[in-house]
Amino acid sequence: MKTLTIDLGARSYPIYIGTGLLSRRDLFTPHIGGEQVMVVTNDVVGPLYLERLLATLGLPDEAALVLPDGERHKTLETVNRIFDALLERRYSRNATLVALGGGVIGDIVGFAAACYQRGIDFIQVPTTLLAQVDSSVGGKTGVNHPLGKNMIGAFHQPRAVIADIATLDTLPERELQAGIAEVIKYGLIRDAPFFTWLEDHIEALRRRDPDALTYAVERSCRNKAEVVAADEREGGLRAILNFGHTFGHAIEAGMGYGRYLHGEAVAIGMCQAADLSARLGLLPRRDVQRIESLLARAGLPTTPPAAMDGAAFLRHMAVDKKNRDGQIRLILLEEIGRATLPRPVPRESLEATLHEYGRSGA
Amino acid sequence: MKTLTIDLGARSYPIYIGTGLLSRRDLFTPHIGGEQVMVVTNDVVGPLYLERLLATLGLPDEAALVLPDGERHKTLETVNRIFDALLERRYSRNATLVALGGGVIGDIVGFAAACYQRGIDFIQVPTTLLAQVDSSVGGKTGVNHPLGKNMIGAFHQPRAVIADIATLDTLPERELQAGIAEVIKYGLIRDAPFFTWLEDHIEALRRRDPDALTYAVERSCRNKAEVVAADEREGGLRAILNFGHTFGHAIEAGMGYGRYLHGEAVAIGMCQAADLSARLGLLPRRDVQRIESLLARAGLPTTPPAAMDGAAFLRHMAVDKKNRDGQIRLILLEEIGRATLPRPVPRESLEATLHEYGRSGA
Repeated sequence: MKTLTIDLGARSYPIYIGTGLLSRRDLFTPHIGGEQVMVVTNDVVGPLYLERLLATLGLPDEAALVLPDGERHKTLETVNRIFDALLERRYSRNATLVALGGGVIGDIVGFAAACYQRGIDFIQVPTTLLAQVDSSVGGKTGVNHPLGKNMIGAFHQPRAVIADIATLDTLPERELQAGIAEVIKYGLIRDAPFFTWLEDHIEALRRRDPDALTYAVERSCRNKAEVVAADEREGGLRAILNFGHTFGHAIEAGMGYGRYLHGEAVAIGMCQAADLSARLGLLPRRDVQRIESLLARAGLPTTPPAAMDGAAFLRHMAVDKKNRDGQIRLILLEEIGRATLPRPVPRESLEATLHEYGRSGA
Repeated sequence: MKTLTIDLGARSYPIYIGTGLLSRRDLFTPHIGGEQVMVVTNDVVGPLYLERLLATLGLPDEAALVLPDGERHKTLETVNRIFDALLERRYSRNATLVALGGGVIGDIVGFAAACYQRGIDFIQVPTTLLAQVDSSVGGKTGVNHPLGKNMIGAFHQPRAVIADIATLDTLPERELQAGIAEVIKYGLIRDAPFFTWLEDHIEALRRRDPDALTYAVERSCRNKAEVVAADEREGGLRAILNFGHTFGHAIEAGMGYGRYLHGEAVAIGMCQAADLSARLGLLPRRDVQRIESLLARAGLPTTPPAAMDGAAFLRHMAVDKKNRDGQIRLILLEEIGRATLPRPVPRESLEATLHEYGRSGA
């Protein structure tokens, strides 16, 4: 088992990465303050791992809440269902929530923990590759709004993240690939040697080689941890973690949440951001091809859906959180392994990427 | 004009107290970071002061959002209306919300600011005595749930509080009295000389003498500021600000939100907490009478509604945030001017207060 620490002063917390951690009660108990614990999961992950986790924690079935699976349920209404359960069962302010599932469960449960009685403890138990390398690290929590993704939320750090690599065995192929998109992102924004390692090991990851997965999760978490430690509240550097996400969020919102997996939309968005970086003279064109090639080998889409025209992108990109006073700002690449901070982009270059990329791209 | 500073390190902020401050643009502009500002008010305060505030800030009518008045609208649904307006109007992460109204508006708008894009700036412009002396100071924000008051919320500090004493001229008599309940609370929990001053000036406050009101608001805010500065996240001392509130919240919830004003319910709750303190031998019985007498002179109720029996109180008190692992904890008085930290109370003494107080009391 590997342990990383996210260094945030009084809110520092450990990330445990390894196989079989769901059965390790000793990893959980130091991070549970009171007697009241509620495990929140969904109706896909619950049948696979809930019983084992409840047994590990010595909890009865009534200490669990099972929500419907899917990004379309990542709403304020679902958060309210958690509040209902907590209040009906008389959970007090020193209760602990445990989020068992993927990124959606982590975001919803984290936000519920942030707001219940103005903030209670929670532990992340991510069961997807995406959640293990991305959404369980960094304290971002929240839900979607019909007019924008993750528009409602809070910064709320977990007490611990317990990433059991063995839970990836049951992950559908498409979700594994979507997680690999975020893994590749770390190589692109700040870790060129890792990008090269990924070019050499992409097939090992796709066939779920445990050693390759463990290495990729650990190195991804380490990259994210370093960025988050330097900029907890997203004042500056942390924005690079959103590379490809502004385009990606537009695809998710424009096509309807759930149609594209987050990682799939981000894969396309990273291609678009790379294309725009090349158009602006920042990134060599051959690197755009190298990026597209690795994403394609990972089984990910690299061109936007035909239904998303430039106007649709611009409409959805206008509500991105990085924007300031109405101007669209994007993270670009200067080379593989080095991202820029968010910057305003010339409208005509952005439109060129939006109008021409799908046709001229990979 | 008086200026107090709430000392919270990087999140420190000023409270301005005086007459005619709604017209003082110079007080607002240093605390507004971006170009996008939205003033949120309700349909009672809006017609009185919205136009003037928009003129002061140089904003068009479209920069305002008018919500329905009343505690029954202090819900997640109303917060969602603010999110709708912010997203429809494309407000970005560096926008500022201005809360113009009483405690309900302040709590709702503060919570919306805490959660919109994971946190934006807001300014409190409290227009009721209660909001000026209590809810606008300290960073507590939130909404009610059918199963408990203020159960959903966040700690989110305003950039500034601008308390215009002149807005109290239009305050209904009953709301003025309810505000005085919280003013009296500061005397009870930590400021005996202020309690004595209030015994001498209660009639001046009730006839809205500007000097008396200014003094009472400033001294109340100073008391609250000292407590909040010592304990921002309510780990310990800050709990004394909830003196009388556990009983009061039970009355508000049990009778249906809006039936009793918050200050009215707290006035009754303070009498009950004083009675319980006397039963436990902490507070002389004559001080209970002194407290009831001042509250009665302020025009406030001092006995619980007949519809609230002991069982109803216990049911609602069971979900209070101060409870731990299922045990009811209360703040008590050791003397006028000195409150205890929350402590578990013997069940039989609590039940004696609940069953006998209404009959034997003032």
